[in-house]
Amino acid sequence: MLHLDLTLLLALVLGAGLGAAFPQDALKKSCSLSKYQFLVPHELKAVQKMKEQFEDIMLLTDRKCYTRLFYRKWRIAELSVPDRMVLVEAELALATAMLGLPAAPRFAETRQRPLAFLTQAREDLRGCMATEAPLHQPSGKLRHWLQKLQTAKKTETPGCLEASAILHLFQVLNDLRCTALREQCT
Amino acid sequence: MLHLDLTLLLALVLGAGLGAAFPQDALKKSCSLSKYQFLVPHELKAVQKMKEQFEDIMLLTDRKCYTRLFYRKWRIAELSVPDRMVLVEAELALATAMLGLPAAPRFAETRQRPLAFLTQAREDLRGCMATEAPLHQPSGKLRHWLQKLQTAKKTETPGCLEASAILHLFQVLNDLRCTALREQCT
Repeated sequence: MLHLDLTLLLALVLGAGLGAAFPQDALKKSCSLSKYQFLVPHELKAVQKMKEQFEDIMLLTDRKCYTRLFYRKWRIAELSVPDRMVLVEAELALATAMLGLPAAPRFAETRQRPLAFLTQAREDLRGCMATEAPLHQPSGKLRHWLQKLQTAKKTETPGCLEASAILHLFQVLNDLRCTALREQCT
Repeated sequence: MLHLDLTLLLALVLGAGLGAAFPQDALKKSCSLSKYQFLVPHELKAVQKMKEQFEDIMLLTDRKCYTRLFYRKWRIAELSVPDRMVLVEAELALATAMLGLPAAPRFAETRQRPLAFLTQAREDLRGCMATEAPLHQPSGKLRHWLQKLQTAKKTETPGCLEASAILHLFQVLNDLRCTALREQCT
């Protein structure tokens, strides 16, 4: 047991040393999405709490949208894994930007944890995209959806964008989970 | 065992017979809220499904409110049981009215089950109010809240009222549960 501990420690120290010796780019190029296959209950609870708090105050601001930002006619499981990564990265980019907007102190406090989690997930996804499919070209249907999202970002009001992003956070988390599950998500 | 079964059957048959012989008013005056102490998962699931479907489409309509209809500074557990009944009955009155508004066929279909459940709950509450506290006068803080709700019903738009009611359905169900739990809800 002691031998195993020492070996582990040695590996960690050596690993850290080797890591430090490698160029930064090599470190970035790792892909670990498996932790998103089963989302941790306390992270889901933090998102749920934030969503409830937002629902309590959201109607006091104009939130009208002209389009349904998260609407699509296809299921994410129909996409290839690299396509799913592009989709979820775009959803997370919008969500994290909206959770970074100025807010009342109480809501700003509540959204901190979900924001940190979603930011980390986006970073992990970007790592995977860079490692596994750096030259990936999105499929036709995904490209169409991305274009619609880009247009909406320019034409819809901040109130609409924020509400859409927060109300659809569980859909985004499901998309993240499906991406992490790879071929097992059907 | 057989004796017990026969006794039970006899009691049920006799009960039904006696019930039929009583005038209608006497039958109405019964109070049974115990079934709302623990809400059935499939009813909660139906409400959740409806809420999600509503969140998908709600932003396409103007929903802005000038007040927070369901906001209150006190907890329901601070109220007496008859006060709680009045509160939840008012919340359910608004919720069932909003779930009866014209809607797209898909949403109209999804809300049928929650609407039936909430209508039944309201009816049961009214039965209890008539039996247990027919002359109950609401406390000052509840009266203030009821007045605010009445004003909002007249001044807010139907879009605001519908969204407020649907987004707060789980709060209403919690209030119903707390009322059913009586002294056990603290």
